[in-house]
Amino acid sequence: MLTLDKIYHAAFVLKDVARKTDLIDATNLGANAQIFLKTENLQLTGSFKLRGAYYKISQLSPEQKAAGILACSAGNHAQGVALAAAEMGIRSVICMPDGAPISKVEATKRLGAEVVLVHGTYDDAYAHALQLQAETGATLIHPFDDELVIAGQGTIGLEVLEQLADADAVVVPVGGGGLLAGVAYAVKNLNPKIKVYGVQAALAPSMYESVKCGSSVTLETVPTFADGIAVKTPGEHTLDLVQKYVDDIVTVCEDEIATAILTLMEKQKLVSEGAGAVSVAAVMFDKLPLKGKKVVCLLSGGNIDVNILSRVITRGLVTSGRNATLQIALEDKPGQLLGVSRIISACGANVTSVHHAGSDPNMAITSCFLTVAMETRDFAQIAEIKAALAREGFQIVPIRQG
Amino acid sequence: MLTLDKIYHAAFVLKDVARKTDLIDATNLGANAQIFLKTENLQLTGSFKLRGAYYKISQLSPEQKAAGILACSAGNHAQGVALAAAEMGIRSVICMPDGAPISKVEATKRLGAEVVLVHGTYDDAYAHALQLQAETGATLIHPFDDELVIAGQGTIGLEVLEQLADADAVVVPVGGGGLLAGVAYAVKNLNPKIKVYGVQAALAPSMYESVKCGSSVTLETVPTFADGIAVKTPGEHTLDLVQKYVDDIVTVCEDEIATAILTLMEKQKLVSEGAGAVSVAAVMFDKLPLKGKKVVCLLSGGNIDVNILSRVITRGLVTSGRNATLQIALEDKPGQLLGVSRIISACGANVTSVHHAGSDPNMAITSCFLTVAMETRDFAQIAEIKAALAREGFQIVPIRQG
Repeated sequence: MLTLDKIYHAAFVLKDVARKTDLIDATNLGANAQIFLKTENLQLTGSFKLRGAYYKISQLSPEQKAAGILACSAGNHAQGVALAAAEMGIRSVICMPDGAPISKVEATKRLGAEVVLVHGTYDDAYAHALQLQAETGATLIHPFDDELVIAGQGTIGLEVLEQLADADAVVVPVGGGGLLAGVAYAVKNLNPKIKVYGVQAALAPSMYESVKCGSSVTLETVPTFADGIAVKTPGEHTLDLVQKYVDDIVTVCEDEIATAILTLMEKQKLVSEGAGAVSVAAVMFDKLPLKGKKVVCLLSGGNIDVNILSRVITRGLVTSGRNATLQIALEDKPGQLLGVSRIISACGANVTSVHHAGSDPNMAITSCFLTVAMETRDFAQIAEIKAALAREGFQIVPIRQG
Repeated sequence: MLTLDKIYHAAFVLKDVARKTDLIDATNLGANAQIFLKTENLQLTGSFKLRGAYYKISQLSPEQKAAGILACSAGNHAQGVALAAAEMGIRSVICMPDGAPISKVEATKRLGAEVVLVHGTYDDAYAHALQLQAETGATLIHPFDDELVIAGQGTIGLEVLEQLADADAVVVPVGGGGLLAGVAYAVKNLNPKIKVYGVQAALAPSMYESVKCGSSVTLETVPTFADGIAVKTPGEHTLDLVQKYVDDIVTVCEDEIATAILTLMEKQKLVSEGAGAVSVAAVMFDKLPLKGKKVVCLLSGGNIDVNILSRVITRGLVTSGRNATLQIALEDKPGQLLGVSRIISACGANVTSVHHAGSDPNMAITSCFLTVAMETRDFAQIAEIKAALAREGFQIVPIRQG
């Protein structure tokens, strides 16, 4: 059974291993609440997962340690286990689906683990890990449904209480629920007045649905880009603890997560992965009754693929009016490109790409399309450019999707 | 004259104003040295500039405070002055060139300053600030060449010594030299065994050249994207202090800065501006004799325009083999696009854009170009795709620049 004792013991064990991450005042996030960020994205391995993995492994018997450990994960748990095992001089084998991003495979190897790429999905990799466990006698470290893992994550709750004793609420990302269960247990047992909330991606609401139904719900698919919390079934221990100690769970959509990631980069200079940013998204988009409150948002991790980060930025630039693409129907005669260029330049936008396409079967034979991408200041500037183009007789054509 | 006393006094004054930023162990930056990051990008206003500005303003007489303050800056100094003045209830006017990014104008206004946009360059804005000073009697706060401003920046040196007493070296970004002068003065006076190095952008080496020549050098242009250190002439006080206390100054090129920014995002989850990342670039690219040493890199700021950040990421993805664009010459007959798609898909890359262009005047009349952009794992995968395309008879054409 989870006890405060175990969480305090975990904190003692982790003292020289995990970083006591900074709690950063982020009032300029501009929401109604006064936000503080617990920056576990700056934790070693880039996420909080080191805490639970290290504490769990540290409590194995000498025989178990000698037999080595196993884990199945394509993400943060893999790196947490790998570093924890390496620190204790224990052999670790991590099973990953073979489609895992090479950056995560490499990061896990660099931390000293042996990586086994298993053909297929996460479930296939997990089946392989179980088989290896049967064959080798190694201990399989579960990513969340283990009371010692939960105790390790709960150390974040202790740190938050120390760093901001008068917090009104703590907002926590939820996948399988290990982080939320541990933090809620610690916080509620020490100061029941502090509210503890969980946040899931609307496309992966397994804990949210399970709490609503009163029993474990398994989702068919979890297609969120916040891969760190894309979990189909909550844990048994974690669901039980969440039902007992958590005040409410809410969900946020993909665009809200992306906006939170971009805002954290711009205003707080912090890189967060999708899973890490859902707590901030929930407060920014007023999903919780936190007006005027002191709120700790747990930034659980920062391991986002740069290709995805690049898309998040691109999308954020478009949705905030700082990047625009216009498609203009032109008569196919000399001087048209010059005319358009002159207008855009006069309005102060910066052209980043131009595509002058030949005829379209749906257009008159003498016409063509010019597609111009620009860096802009804001929506007002885009409107100004559109108006100026229209005044000069250029026809702006909506860009067809897909 | 600058004294340790003044720096200690500045630290006392700043105690409840500036954040004591974390010193983060960043050994995974993979260089030969053991790197620690002093994260002033996480400072309030997103850069260290608050320190010097606040201390300077705090030492004005009541009459001077009543007459208000002035500054000329399109960057971090503007925000530092604005917040410092607002905290002390003093009126501040900031002159900026009218081409300043709207994000910086807005951020400065949000912090409570009045912004005057001046038509032209930084020099024009500065001339206007001098004129306002003559007219209103307000005090002009220099961004670096002021001993109290330098004392404020020097508080970072005190914090570094406290956070890592056995550091071997401190590496500091240099524009006008206020940060370097303050940090070097503090560090060298307290522990002369610690090396202090400065780093400039190779495209804006005003302090570097001045130290080499033994007297102040003024550059005609400073076209680096690291706008925070694009300074044409070093300060008098700062040059003097740098000559006395700094061990060496080196420069880094634009691509090295961009790589450092991307690496800091991926491995440390920290957003840094170009000026902030030059210290890390210098260590990553072995510009200094630091093998095996404990090195503190000052990350001086994180205020990078997201449009630029997006380009840095894009370029970094290409230079690290995680994004590739291939141009393929096709015979203009059915099934060709299918053939190419099949090969790319079989190699496991992810197509992000396709452009099928009509004829090119330099090509045979029956041929056309297919341009495919892909997310890739690494250079090996790109080579594999190229080889597979060649085996199937597709001709890859180099992409012409500009």
